[in-house]
Amino acid sequence: MSRPPFLQIDPPQRLLMGPGPINAHPRVLRAMSADMLGQFDPEMTFYMNETMALYRQVFMTENRWTFLVDGTARAGIEAALASLIEPGALTLILRTGRFGLLLSEIAERLGADIRVLDLPWGETATPDQIEEAIKQHRPRVFACIHGDTSTTMAQPLDGIGELCRRYDVLSYADVTATLGGMPVRTDQWGIDVISGGLQKCMGGPPGSAPITISDRAADFIMSRRHVEAGIRSSSQTDGSRIRIASNYFDLAMIMDYWSEKRLNHHTEATSMLYAAREAACIVLEEGLENRFARHTQASTALIAGLRAMNLEIFGQDAHRMTNVTGLWIPENINGEAVRTRMREDFGIEIGTAFGPLAGRIWRIGTMGYNAVKHKVLLTLGALEAALAAEGYPVPRGAAVDAALACWP
Amino acid sequence: MSRPPFLQIDPPQRLLMGPGPINAHPRVLRAMSADMLGQFDPEMTFYMNETMALYRQVFMTENRWTFLVDGTARAGIEAALASLIEPGALTLILRTGRFGLLLSEIAERLGADIRVLDLPWGETATPDQIEEAIKQHRPRVFACIHGDTSTTMAQPLDGIGELCRRYDVLSYADVTATLGGMPVRTDQWGIDVISGGLQKCMGGPPGSAPITISDRAADFIMSRRHVEAGIRSSSQTDGSRIRIASNYFDLAMIMDYWSEKRLNHHTEATSMLYAAREAACIVLEEGLENRFARHTQASTALIAGLRAMNLEIFGQDAHRMTNVTGLWIPENINGEAVRTRMREDFGIEIGTAFGPLAGRIWRIGTMGYNAVKHKVLLTLGALEAALAAEGYPVPRGAAVDAALACWP
Repeated sequence: MSRPPFLQIDPPQRLLMGPGPINAHPRVLRAMSADMLGQFDPEMTFYMNETMALYRQVFMTENRWTFLVDGTARAGIEAALASLIEPGALTLILRTGRFGLLLSEIAERLGADIRVLDLPWGETATPDQIEEAIKQHRPRVFACIHGDTSTTMAQPLDGIGELCRRYDVLSYADVTATLGGMPVRTDQWGIDVISGGLQKCMGGPPGSAPITISDRAADFIMSRRHVEAGIRSSSQTDGSRIRIASNYFDLAMIMDYWSEKRLNHHTEATSMLYAAREAACIVLEEGLENRFARHTQASTALIAGLRAMNLEIFGQDAHRMTNVTGLWIPENINGEAVRTRMREDFGIEIGTAFGPLAGRIWRIGTMGYNAVKHKVLLTLGALEAALAAEGYPVPRGAAVDAALACWP
Repeated sequence: MSRPPFLQIDPPQRLLMGPGPINAHPRVLRAMSADMLGQFDPEMTFYMNETMALYRQVFMTENRWTFLVDGTARAGIEAALASLIEPGALTLILRTGRFGLLLSEIAERLGADIRVLDLPWGETATPDQIEEAIKQHRPRVFACIHGDTSTTMAQPLDGIGELCRRYDVLSYADVTATLGGMPVRTDQWGIDVISGGLQKCMGGPPGSAPITISDRAADFIMSRRHVEAGIRSSSQTDGSRIRIASNYFDLAMIMDYWSEKRLNHHTEATSMLYAAREAACIVLEEGLENRFARHTQASTALIAGLRAMNLEIFGQDAHRMTNVTGLWIPENINGEAVRTRMREDFGIEIGTAFGPLAGRIWRIGTMGYNAVKHKVLLTLGALEAALAAEGYPVPRGAAVDAALACWP
């Protein structure tokens, strides 16, 4: 860190095998070097429409309202919740890890009347548990995380949207960590609003949050619509419900901006739009099912390698995310010392953990551009060496051999 | 617009001479093609610290708390207001154009008790008018726009921060349209919180909002601090005042993230950080005063050229922004037809207008990378041809000659 300041940007080449951000696909990075367009230039709005069409495929949905929120994945979550939750609205939140807690933290600030379905970090809820909680609390909104990287568990969502509709509940799911890596079957799930990010399985940089909204949720959000005074004209009418508490996260206004009306809201983050568009192109060229299979293959091999080193995997096999794996730090091993060796000797990053799991598990990602054979093998080899250097009795060579055997 | 979808990104090369976004400096575009780093990698936090140091210079401040909000310029405005305004707080807003209206729109949603100092679009307030309004309303917060592109006027801010402190008022100014093009003398003005954007005079893409915060405002914001449950530990204490209504825009949490504590909040938008850093490097290499002079020179020449075509400039000469110029659309000329000719025949974009000025003025930017002789001359030449084609009796060649004569 002793170089003189303000030289050209020149980050060291890291292999990012943590829970995200991961290395961006080089095509995505190159796409960002295209120059700006005016925000209402027909070429720009063409790219906006194209991006909507691409993300409908990525989200496996017919939802008309599928677009980008300009900010990191967390901005997508807050836009969804701010638009769905009116002050005082009874809101049920499933919390099984850090990001479930984030949902209730955001909802609290929005003035929601919160009920929680809390499970220990590392567990997932059954549809029966969710139905029980809905029957008990009769919420207006249900919110949950699909893949909570803090625990590496994926919450099954099949049937949950349908369940919510049966009780007239608007539903939200965050798929930041799974979009483009595990199936996000928006229409099949029937979840009303789903938002994600680019920096995990999509293979892009953080800073743009793709979102998709059902017609039913869009109707509700539009009933909270309120056009800005500075651009108001007689043809625009406000909705009857309580105005959304944020201007930036007002999805009604953002929909007006992405619609044929092109009502000015923010200035679309052009470079991030280019990145999001290119990331989706790459995902769809590979094919969603191929991509899901590639992630499964990579994490299966990673787990085989870790187990061959007698390391214990965290959580339940049945609900494991296929793109990030938690493993217990062995007794008497300094987790941070191992991570530092990985980074400094091998240029590889693996993840630490939060909350009750901090200092107890590592998290290794196999995401997007990095969910490939050679990166899994390099990571296992490096981890073996780092563990050995820290005094863990590792059977040399076993991890790479076990992982390698998982590929045909 | 008939090309098959999902080809490589390939926007046509436009010369963006509107009120922003403008063409990004190629060095900024290239910086974004650097790959990701983990968010707590020492190399990443080094770049974050460097970026803070660079923006202190750009904002002409010693403020420790000088960093980026991840979103477009509007995100910076909302973060500032959400963090400064408690529900019910008496808030005085100076409104002389669209973006003043935006401030009150955002503040309303935050539950502020709003008082306004309203002036017709195109005027600016005197210090006496501001002091009168402060004495009358005794607000907790005063908010204004430095350069409101909707009117092309710059609000003088010398002495305003000191005035606000005398009455114990927290002050905010938006400098999205002026940062890097006109003097933004944070410490001299004494304004507590100032936020900007990249896509105008900074010569970067939209999507990152630099912000600077005085110690006094930071103390206030930290008194509203509330650490997220998912990352809470015994060493973190909450403040005594009302929690900030937004998680994403909670500047107390964002300061914790940019501080040595590195408490996780969002995942920093890496590529946009690289862009913001490079944009600041370019600004500082040129030198702030050189850069301000270049903008003044460009707009002076532009105005000379426009007047040589007998076009009438909008607003008051004394308070004109030096980076965007409004001009009245001549009678019987279709403003949109001229803009379309400019774009389609010459690849040049000039701006339309909002609200009471919609359809009445055009706005021509001379911003950042585009505030240079040849771009001003090309724009004037193209405008002359477009006006002539639309039937306006333009003295041929006069505009370019008049502008050219403005450079030594």
